[in-house]
Amino acid sequence: MDWTQLIGSIAAIMTTTAFVPQAVKIIRTKSTRDISLGMYLILTTGILFWLIYGILLREPPIIFANTIGFTLTFTILILKIKYRKADG
Amino acid sequence: MDWTQLIGSIAAIMTTTAFVPQAVKIIRTKSTRDISLGMYLILTTGILFWLIYGILLREPPIIFANTIGFTLTFTILILKIKYRKADG
Repeated sequence: MDWTQLIGSIAAIMTTTAFVPQAVKIIRTKSTRDISLGMYLILTTGILFWLIYGILLREPPIIFANTIGFTLTFTILILKIKYRKADG
Repeated sequence: MDWTQLIGSIAAIMTTTAFVPQAVKIIRTKSTRDISLGMYLILTTGILFWLIYGILLREPPIIFANTIGFTLTFTILILKIKYRKADG
């Protein structure tokens, strides 16, 4: 693995796992008032497009990173919809 | 542009612009209580790594998408730090 691939791998791991603390925070507080529904609707759909792109290219790293990314952002989206009414 | 490139372009536009409604929401409400600081610290750093990766590969689409992505997520990070104390 050269420097470029290493930097790309670090980038992929960080932009995928970044959503974990947000999901944990929502599960703990049950509050999503300040979270934008629009953001997670667009982001989840966009990551789904990245996943389709990776499948079409048959590129395992793109498929792998976006499967995790989709799972995490979709979880946040569902939690936002679930706690939406309680947000007032 | 073939179908794969078109799907990749839609994916890039969506996962980049998704952060606009979140930034707008914070600017309007001045509240970031439910926003995870950890998420934006990791995400902004990760996107910076994607940007370096794009520069090393000399790939304009990666550079372009991640410059916008970095600007938007860095803005949200700064707003989170700014309104952090007010969040209580």
